[in-house]
Amino acid sequence: MTLYRRELLSLGVFALLPQVRALAQAPADLDNLISDLVAANHILATEGIVDGYGHVSVRSPRSKDRFFLSRSLAPESVTAADILEYGLDGEAVDPKGKASYKERFIHSEIYRARPDVNAVVHCHAPSLIPFGVTKVPLRPMYHQSAFLAAGVPVFEIREAGGMTNMLVETVALGRALAKTLADKPAALMRGHGAVVVADTIPNVVGRSIYLEINARVQAQAIALGGPITYIDTEEARKYAASDNYSRAWELWKKKAGSK
Amino acid sequence: MTLYRRELLSLGVFALLPQVRALAQAPADLDNLISDLVAANHILATEGIVDGYGHVSVRSPRSKDRFFLSRSLAPESVTAADILEYGLDGEAVDPKGKASYKERFIHSEIYRARPDVNAVVHCHAPSLIPFGVTKVPLRPMYHQSAFLAAGVPVFEIREAGGMTNMLVETVALGRALAKTLADKPAALMRGHGAVVVADTIPNVVGRSIYLEINARVQAQAIALGGPITYIDTEEARKYAASDNYSRAWELWKKKAGSK
Amino acid sequence: MTLYRRELLSLGVFALLPQVRALAQAPADLDNLISDLVAANHILATEGIVDGYGHVSVRSPRSKDRFFLSRSLAPESVTAADILEYGLDGEAVDPKGKASYKERFIHSEIYRARPDVNAVVHCHAPSLIPFGVTKVPLRPMYHQSAFLAAGVPVFEIREAGGMTNMLVETVALGRALAKTLADKPAALMRGHGAVVVADTIPNVVGRSIYLEINARVQAQAIALGGPITYIDTEEARKYAASDNYSRAWELWKKKAGSK
Amino acid sequence: MTLYRRELLSLGVFALLPQVRALAQAPADLDNLISDLVAANHILATEGIVDGYGHVSVRSPRSKDRFFLSRSLAPESVTAADILEYGLDGEAVDPKGKASYKERFIHSEIYRARPDVNAVVHCHAPSLIPFGVTKVPLRPMYHQSAFLAAGVPVFEIREAGGMTNMLVETVALGRALAKTLADKPAALMRGHGAVVVADTIPNVVGRSIYLEINARVQAQAIALGGPITYIDTEEARKYAASDNYSRAWELWKKKAGSK
Repeated sequence: MTLYRRELLSLGVFALLPQVRALAQAPADLDNLISDLVAANHILATEGIVDGYGHVSVRSPRSKDRFFLSRSLAPESVTAADILEYGLDGEAVDPKGKASYKERFIHSEIYRARPDVNAVVHCHAPSLIPFGVTKVPLRPMYHQSAFLAAGVPVFEIREAGGMTNMLVETVALGRALAKTLADKPAALMRGHGAVVVADTIPNVVGRSIYLEINARVQAQAIALGGPITYIDTEEARKYAASDNYSRAWELWKKKAGSK
Repeated sequence: MTLYRRELLSLGVFALLPQVRALAQAPADLDNLISDLVAANHILATEGIVDGYGHVSVRSPRSKDRFFLSRSLAPESVTAADILEYGLDGEAVDPKGKASYKERFIHSEIYRARPDVNAVVHCHAPSLIPFGVTKVPLRPMYHQSAFLAAGVPVFEIREAGGMTNMLVETVALGRALAKTLADKPAALMRGHGAVVVADTIPNVVGRSIYLEINARVQAQAIALGGPITYIDTEEARKYAASDNYSRAWELWKKKAGSK
Repeated sequence: MTLYRRELLSLGVFALLPQVRALAQAPADLDNLISDLVAANHILATEGIVDGYGHVSVRSPRSKDRFFLSRSLAPESVTAADILEYGLDGEAVDPKGKASYKERFIHSEIYRARPDVNAVVHCHAPSLIPFGVTKVPLRPMYHQSAFLAAGVPVFEIREAGGMTNMLVETVALGRALAKTLADKPAALMRGHGAVVVADTIPNVVGRSIYLEINARVQAQAIALGGPITYIDTEEARKYAASDNYSRAWELWKKKAGSK
Repeated sequence: MTLYRRELLSLGVFALLPQVRALAQAPADLDNLISDLVAANHILATEGIVDGYGHVSVRSPRSKDRFFLSRSLAPESVTAADILEYGLDGEAVDPKGKASYKERFIHSEIYRARPDVNAVVHCHAPSLIPFGVTKVPLRPMYHQSAFLAAGVPVFEIREAGGMTNMLVETVALGRALAKTLADKPAALMRGHGAVVVADTIPNVVGRSIYLEINARVQAQAIALGGPITYIDTEEARKYAASDNYSRAWELWKKKAGSK
């Protein structure tokens, strides 16, 4: 059995060639990347993954120690002018007098722990919450969410921080979340939401959208009763080799009114 | 354990410094407050909390014995010209020949009983109804609805008024509802809907929106089966110290087309 | 216990003064009535009660033996020019070369059997179907659907016509449906949909909308488990005396883009 | 008992007069057929049957060995210029340098096996997934989905191809799917979606829409508990003789903004 690089990446076994990877997918044009990040904000709002809260970031193609993230703002309202550059300490390089998201450490610590990851989404999509507060694990219902075959761990913030305000607003909590995420494409956060990662912006957006659909579909299948046939790990591995989300990305951008 | 003022307010322990509080949050500009009240009407309609029925009010910043509420009109259609000023007897100071909501006593009696409250929403959101007619208590599923940790009592109108037309259209019924609400941020009304209170308009709108989402999420979690981990009271207390809903408020206004 | 006329009407005990009633609510202006009928078509589509199928009619204010109904057309597309006048035999007085709905006999036979009824809706709203094919009776969850306290019978077309194409496309089947409906405000049709009746267009539209919401709410309450407290018959009787749907009607028309 | 041609066709007993049928329904104007195919793409997106993925095809009226299908593109974005002609080998007659859908063999092999079929939809509508991964068969809840009385088989790709990437991207897999479909109007695909067939574009679109609604309605009916009365095979046979979907087709086109 031969595993190709892309399959490994899609299945969450990303730790092999991080620097090469980060540079390989770097776009020639930073403006295009920022434009895609703005589009991702709008798409996630249009598709119901985020509301007034939640955020999406992308690693800088110029330095693996930097990433881009909007200032504290509802995703639907984000423009290119709102994007700030951050270091892996979770602090804005130049805050321009703007407030940052309290939970920016979700991003900084995942970028630190996962060199293979170039894009991160944090959201509170309602359909995901039940799977974070019960013992029912999210599992892949169909090919579109086959990446879930890698498993979706649940982050229990009490194990890391005891009684908190539920927000990942310190380096330590961000690190604990990244540790729970490990090499997986997504993790749920108990009583809070989820974090989703991928190698590109379209892929992290696509995974976020199909993670949410999968939660609804799985809840409906459970309600029907009886055993459920999930996507097999081997099927997921093979599906991961397909070119995911590129066709949908153009549609999502159009629907979200982004250019 | 030190409890700060905002935490106390957010957890429903509001009775300490009512006059000071009411005046402290009074905006310099009454026009802005009325504009926010109109926006709240539109937002609640846009977000599916109210349909042709339901209402939202705000206490007057100039007198703790007065509050502002639209004349009898679908919230989505309310303009500044429709806002009337009411006394704590539930009667319009100057009705201008316009009909009042029959259930305005929900507002007047809560303002009378709860000096800490400056904004009240009454709604019939469908997802809330099941929790008012069964023995399943609404409990907080995630940080956004952490304020529910204070508990959500259910108002049984028969205990106060025997067989009625289900409407809180008298001072006595309004008083009974306020007594059921006690120091909580929200109460369900059996076979009817809910009442939500807060210290500001954005907060009462935000609580209404996340109360509704919480009901859907909790129903889905129950359907998954097994024990549910709710937000802990201590987590809720700490979350309450965060700055709630201000980021979302601007988005909600934009989506509702309000200025 | 004194029952007032409006309460009787709203509870489905309509058979007392039919002619007087029919004439009493006749609008001075037939154009306005047709305009309301067109609006009702658009509202039912906008609110998700009908899709490409379903229809709504109104009894003629000039003759209790006539009613108005669109030619065979999707409700959303109906204009005043599409409205035809029908006799109680279910035939268009002047078909103008246009096809009629096959199931127009639903309307004609209900108008024949129920002199108190002036408006009829037939729809296939998906949330109603489960209650027509199981043994779970629709019951009133909240004040907005209190009219269901009168009971919602289920029409089993096999009892009237044996194996059919499921359509009420004959006088005999229409008559059987009207018999099942009896003096109630609504009846479900097994494997098909529902019929809703009222004294006015706004009331039949309002009942259709809240019937649909009630079905969703009741299904959710059942899923929560445990006993459900339904609206009591006495509460429903008292609520029926309230002025229903007039406030919402203006909003519905605005949302549906009707004039 | 006499079975008329249209009834046979609608019930999935199509194999009698294929060539005659294919030619009989051929439109005089190929442009109109392509226009309808474009409309079908948009309608399926607007009605939530497809998202960025899924496709719809139509058999050529000029040759039963050819069919029309968009190049690889999100259905919502398809225009007449994107439509390519394919042979029954699943290859574009003239690809014009454009990429084809990987799963075009779903279409080619069904057209090969089913001379009575002139239109094919492949989709991943979320509400269909649970019925493909559990042992609960889809059954007809109401007249609009009566065509399901013929039965809805489930395609298990492992039986045909062992561990795959879940995609029907070879002739062999397409043939296996067509074999599972047999003479039925629709088949589910485990962990993937569904395929729907009919004699015309409006009929395949209508069946796709009501298949999806039926899945939601059936899930809700199951949740209510107790036995369900499905549409009887005889009722379905009689309903099939009605003129299906033509009234809705005009509305769907209007809603989708197609001409």
